[in-house]
Amino acid sequence: MAEPEWESLEQCLEKHLPPTDLREVKRLLYGKETRKLDLPSQALECAAEGDFELQGYAFEAAEEQLRGPRTVRVGLVQNRIPLPAEAPVAKQVSALHRRIEAIVEVAAMCGVNIICFQEAWTMPFAFCTREKLPWTEFAESAEDGPTTRFCQKLAKKHNMVVVSPILERDGAHGDVLWNTAVVISNSGAVLGKTRKNHIPRVGDFNESTYYMEGNLGHPVFQTQFGRIAVNICYGRHHPLNWFIESMWPIEARNAAIANHCFTCAINRVGKEHFPHEFTSGDGKKAHKDFGYFYGSSYVAAPDSSRTPGLSRTRDGLLVAELNLNLCRQVNDVWNFKMTGRYDMYARELAEAVQPDYRPHIVRE
Amino acid sequence: MAEPEWESLEQCLEKHLPPTDLREVKRLLYGKETRKLDLPSQALECAAEGDFELQGYAFEAAEEQLRGPRTVRVGLVQNRIPLPAEAPVAKQVSALHRRIEAIVEVAAMCGVNIICFQEAWTMPFAFCTREKLPWTEFAESAEDGPTTRFCQKLAKKHNMVVVSPILERDGAHGDVLWNTAVVISNSGAVLGKTRKNHIPRVGDFNESTYYMEGNLGHPVFQTQFGRIAVNICYGRHHPLNWFIESMWPIEARNAAIANHCFTCAINRVGKEHFPHEFTSGDGKKAHKDFGYFYGSSYVAAPDSSRTPGLSRTRDGLLVAELNLNLCRQVNDVWNFKMTGRYDMYARELAEAVQPDYRPHIVRE
Repeated sequence: MAEPEWESLEQCLEKHLPPTDLREVKRLLYGKETRKLDLPSQALECAAEGDFELQGYAFEAAEEQLRGPRTVRVGLVQNRIPLPAEAPVAKQVSALHRRIEAIVEVAAMCGVNIICFQEAWTMPFAFCTREKLPWTEFAESAEDGPTTRFCQKLAKKHNMVVVSPILERDGAHGDVLWNTAVVISNSGAVLGKTRKNHIPRVGDFNESTYYMEGNLGHPVFQTQFGRIAVNICYGRHHPLNWFIESMWPIEARNAAIANHCFTCAINRVGKEHFPHEFTSGDGKKAHKDFGYFYGSSYVAAPDSSRTPGLSRTRDGLLVAELNLNLCRQVNDVWNFKMTGRYDMYARELAEAVQPDYRPHIVRE
Repeated sequence: MAEPEWESLEQCLEKHLPPTDLREVKRLLYGKETRKLDLPSQALECAAEGDFELQGYAFEAAEEQLRGPRTVRVGLVQNRIPLPAEAPVAKQVSALHRRIEAIVEVAAMCGVNIICFQEAWTMPFAFCTREKLPWTEFAESAEDGPTTRFCQKLAKKHNMVVVSPILERDGAHGDVLWNTAVVISNSGAVLGKTRKNHIPRVGDFNESTYYMEGNLGHPVFQTQFGRIAVNICYGRHHPLNWFIESMWPIEARNAAIANHCFTCAINRVGKEHFPHEFTSGDGKKAHKDFGYFYGSSYVAAPDSSRTPGLSRTRDGLLVAELNLNLCRQVNDVWNFKMTGRYDMYARELAEAVQPDYRPHIVRE
């Protein structure tokens, strides 16, 4: 990943394009414009003081006769690691807890109902090293580890659903590790968890050294603010598509369109330096970091519109107000579930996964 | 579809952005830069004379030890209807044949091996009218209709594979209609056909009035220049995603990434006026056209790079040189086929299509 050259795509376009051209470019790139949210000045001040970006946008839906608007506010947090990766494990975790606590305070001021943190948020993304200690010490129980207990307190205090992706230690099954997102209800109860279903084996992403493919399927969680599901890193049908910068703007939008739902894409920011050098399977010399995580977190809607991205370089909180009515409205217009012919694909896929499957190819 | 305000997104960005910013914006939007092809001056002159755009780009792959580069040139044709939709059917078809013949001559000068035409290329896209005559008169036999015979001649003359999407009349099965792409070998033989699998029922796209969902599955055709498959209009898993302009840049790229293949996205240009007014199911007054087709045809590669789009307003031929070795190279790097867990999806999909299926939802 190259060094980010500037703050964001949006800032660059806004700086150079005349207003009418900018509007047309944004329409082609981002679809229908999302409305800027009027966030409380106290929240904006706290964000400035805490040195993180704060942005807010709203997606709107048509009025209906039988259902009122069902608005829900989601918060996406992207952040760098506040302490170096060499710092003691407990100190790193506690510094991250404190950083997130402060950002969640601001999210609460902004009326956020569901807050989402980045993958393995309590640790550096150290899987590039292929070293076990100290990194596996960051693993915790999903049900009652210190981070889950920390999130339960946040959830209760702010009446928020919390999506907390951590490295999980599964004590009930031989102490194995998983890459897991814990979903905590706004009541403070642990609602359940999702385990990463697709594990990369490429370059610096040697994660299969640490954990296997998830065994929990694709659970859906009913919360007071709507149904949510979590997809860690690899897309459901389109694994690894977030890894290359030019893939980042595509996959979450494609999923939102194809499934008539909202999707929230979170990415880390900053460069993480590791104590020992490692190689990246690309023939290049060993090094102690693998470049920048480029942030740019965003929310995509079923009508193909999306918010601008957060900064490529700074910590940030993106608040997005969704009107969930938009999902069924788009469903009724485009009918993808009706025209999807899932029975045909179920048959073809069942055939294609057989070990003795031979593809049908038309030849002259 | 709104009136196109300018020629293309690329032209607008090139006009306003300083060179370094332009390079960075293009990298984020389009991935690794595609090399401009050096096309023969005779071809460029003929295109200027024939008043259509001609662009050429090459995708490159790494050198291998056991396989030489496997380059193939594909041509994408986007065009408006040359005669008004009121003109006699035979005249319209013959004017389109002449127009395409001229463009294919230029494609031949550019060394194109596989040429692809737009959906229902021999007719206006008249399905918005819901009238049967005269539009159903454009339907032809896929095996030996005049358009297939015309394409067979082109294929033999230029040693090109031709992908020819037409409205098909299926005489063997009660004269029903299909939305079909005929694939013709460079030998001139009809290799086979694909029928559109997902039929829209929305606004002006009332195509289910004319034809049903395809019954041929997803055939793959082995040609001398590589294996090809055709996807008409609705994406395989993501139906209708081409219809909204902000969806257009997403789906074909997503498919290229997810499947480690090249994808070619073709769209019409221009406004088509119909003799009788029709409504669009949107509460608005009747009208005789439904706005502009916005062209912007492009080719996407498995590494997430893509060519710029053709014009939003002009007829055009896009020549793209692909090195097919890139597909397996990307496959070996990203492993989506290996990490895709298709067996899990086959099981879950088989379950989900059952009439008595109840989604598993986690509740507190």
